[in-house]
Amino acid sequence: MPHVQAWKEYQSANKERFLSELLGLLRVPSISAKGEHKADMQRCAELVKQRLEEAGVDKAEIYSTEGHPVVYGEKIIDPKKPTVLVYGHYDVQPADPLDLWHSGPFEPVLKDGKVYARGACDDKGQFYMHVKAFETMSKTGTLSTNIKFIIEGEEEIGSPNLARFVVAHKDLLKADVVLISDTAMISMDHPSIDVGVRGLSYIEVEVTGPNRDLHSGVYGGAVANPITILCQLIASCHDKHNYITIPGFYDDVVESTPDERRQLAHAPYDEDGYKTDLGVKALWGEDGYSTNERTGIRPTLEVNGIWGGYTGEGAKTVLPSKAYAKISARLVPRQSSKVITQKLLDYFTHHAPPGVTVKATEHHGGEPYMTPINSVAYKAAAKAIETTFGKQPIPVRGGGSIPICSLFEKELHNQVIFMGFGLDSDNLHSPNEKFDLFNFYKGIETIPYFHRYFAELKHG
Amino acid sequence: MPHVQAWKEYQSANKERFLSELLGLLRVPSISAKGEHKADMQRCAELVKQRLEEAGVDKAEIYSTEGHPVVYGEKIIDPKKPTVLVYGHYDVQPADPLDLWHSGPFEPVLKDGKVYARGACDDKGQFYMHVKAFETMSKTGTLSTNIKFIIEGEEEIGSPNLARFVVAHKDLLKADVVLISDTAMISMDHPSIDVGVRGLSYIEVEVTGPNRDLHSGVYGGAVANPITILCQLIASCHDKHNYITIPGFYDDVVESTPDERRQLAHAPYDEDGYKTDLGVKALWGEDGYSTNERTGIRPTLEVNGIWGGYTGEGAKTVLPSKAYAKISARLVPRQSSKVITQKLLDYFTHHAPPGVTVKATEHHGGEPYMTPINSVAYKAAAKAIETTFGKQPIPVRGGGSIPICSLFEKELHNQVIFMGFGLDSDNLHSPNEKFDLFNFYKGIETIPYFHRYFAELKHG
Repeated sequence: MPHVQAWKEYQSANKERFLSELLGLLRVPSISAKGEHKADMQRCAELVKQRLEEAGVDKAEIYSTEGHPVVYGEKIIDPKKPTVLVYGHYDVQPADPLDLWHSGPFEPVLKDGKVYARGACDDKGQFYMHVKAFETMSKTGTLSTNIKFIIEGEEEIGSPNLARFVVAHKDLLKADVVLISDTAMISMDHPSIDVGVRGLSYIEVEVTGPNRDLHSGVYGGAVANPITILCQLIASCHDKHNYITIPGFYDDVVESTPDERRQLAHAPYDEDGYKTDLGVKALWGEDGYSTNERTGIRPTLEVNGIWGGYTGEGAKTVLPSKAYAKISARLVPRQSSKVITQKLLDYFTHHAPPGVTVKATEHHGGEPYMTPINSVAYKAAAKAIETTFGKQPIPVRGGGSIPICSLFEKELHNQVIFMGFGLDSDNLHSPNEKFDLFNFYKGIETIPYFHRYFAELKHG
Repeated sequence: MPHVQAWKEYQSANKERFLSELLGLLRVPSISAKGEHKADMQRCAELVKQRLEEAGVDKAEIYSTEGHPVVYGEKIIDPKKPTVLVYGHYDVQPADPLDLWHSGPFEPVLKDGKVYARGACDDKGQFYMHVKAFETMSKTGTLSTNIKFIIEGEEEIGSPNLARFVVAHKDLLKADVVLISDTAMISMDHPSIDVGVRGLSYIEVEVTGPNRDLHSGVYGGAVANPITILCQLIASCHDKHNYITIPGFYDDVVESTPDERRQLAHAPYDEDGYKTDLGVKALWGEDGYSTNERTGIRPTLEVNGIWGGYTGEGAKTVLPSKAYAKISARLVPRQSSKVITQKLLDYFTHHAPPGVTVKATEHHGGEPYMTPINSVAYKAAAKAIETTFGKQPIPVRGGGSIPICSLFEKELHNQVIFMGFGLDSDNLHSPNEKFDLFNFYKGIETIPYFHRYFAELKHG
């Protein structure tokens, strides 16, 4: 390919700047879940817009929403050429618990060839690979597709305003494929492409017992303790086989065929290494399924947070008035986020004893999504990865969720391709999130090939 | 009785000062559970000592311990006369949750004839009745017994250092009876005397799953979630009859006789009023027992606090590394705090699945205590209350715990008499703790009669 040498030279000459720009992005605490970061969100959006402009887009714009702004940018080289819509998000998860970070979550640190910061991998480091890959093609005059960027600020809170934006801007967003780097590979030695992401139903439960905190000696044993009841409700969500007991939870699950499960069993997986990495003596999960199946093809239910009563130093003999939990389910194809959310809300609301009242509310949700592996775009992605990694990528099912995928398919009629360059061990959503610089640069190296192959295969 | 008029006049003339001194005590945030209040504890002890001196003791002293100091004071009128040892505590429970207080917990407010502050009833307001009753007798020259005060600073954390102090100062503390006002009456219309307090076993449980917080999509369903496991452990502590399932928990419980239960059933109890006061539609507890039985003669197990994962604003899709709970049991006669604590620790440590590790530690404990109703001291207390209330007090079993009672009996060979003037609705350990000024003054009025009757009956 004629452009390969130009890409290499450009990327090599600008390597340091690419990284220092990423560090600048990582310094902005763009936590979408917390109201106190509203100004940071705006600042981050403006920085993304500026970087898109510098990279060579024809136009870039910040669109306000009822929540955090969406950044849009485009470069149209020829309306007759195929168009790639790159989706990413500049918002990040909250950084708590702060005391477990080895360095400040918004003071990126380089160590052992990795950058440590909240958002390093999810998703600032990954969407920025696209900005720098685009710059590479743009500045070397080697663009082979039109390109559109939509970088939003609400992915980590379920993209509550993006649907309206997409519906209102269908023409603006018109494309041939949606390309997303917000997932992981098995490893750099075992490149893979996610062919599905799970859906999400996220609820919050508030259990109220007595109208005030009580002395646990004076009233204990005679009044329902909302913590105890909440624990009973949560415990009853799984049976002894770790099967989820919410009525109808599995009704719409598409069971994988024996053939799919055989394929999945061939993906590299080292159980001892997995346990050692996590520091656990034994794994846990639904009986009859492997780890890769539990995190890929099966729906799950996790408690993400719980609190109630006295949680300070020492002891307090209180029977509290309230207890709370944040609970979310991951969904697989044919499960509907709306349906499952309602089932969860109903379960918690209707299964409590009469001594308490339960208020269950929805946080956010997203539909599961699967992409076919026989599409032109999938083939282009696989070929690009094979070119730069020297190995054919394995198709796998990802455990995480990207709520907006099903919307892109429904409203824009585009398939979504996941070219993730992260690793499961990148501590996404955890303290000490990281992104390997090798992966960052490998992504920037690989993405231009995708555009090239996609244009070729599309026209061929 | 010749002194009655003198007492009345003295108390009437000094009523306002009694209250303003109490408010001064309530302004000191003497929270024993929190290390940051160490200086406040010392300051509170010094204030108690000063007030004892002003009230007329011969000597007062602050004894250091490995924890918070003990205040001692005495007035010996005649070594041949009986001696009453008054026990109380100047420490208070933590004030959280602060946002539910209508006024600052350490900024006492007078409203509708009540004083609102942490410690108003438990136990500053109640032990201070004894200081002012003593002052009344002392200043009017009407003392009929010797009196010793032991006011400690660690009752709310299980009196960890008082045992050593008592053992080391048996001569100093030599007395004929221990008198404590740290309990409640049924109501001012239904005066009662607690004949027992429950014991306590208080533990903290830490469940650790993976060695770091994880992305709940990437790892959820394949790794044990410590919150889920903790909830399962807590849920399994009660069966569907709300009977406690910890093996051997009930082994040493002395079952009440049908006659005792019949007597208990005669204590005034208004179930509708009880539910309305607490804002609950239904009560909850061990099948086959009434509310008064559940809070008096039966042991109980309550979760006092729980926390883990993300508890902030919005949603975070995390599978946390750790989850915690504070759990305590109330014990009835023949149950041993040490034995039950060990059973609780064993239960939580040994019943978790292999995917997590559980660390369970003891906070503190205390033995249950019962006092006979045919003793001279009980008769003196009953007669004193009958004198000022115009009604015979009903003997009842209290639900709370005063860890030191069994020690007084064991080391000092003294029975303990509970003359409580609080109410269950005084919001002990809760926001907006209060003490009715009527009760405060009624206590100061009643206590001198106890001393008088005790001296008479003892010699009679």
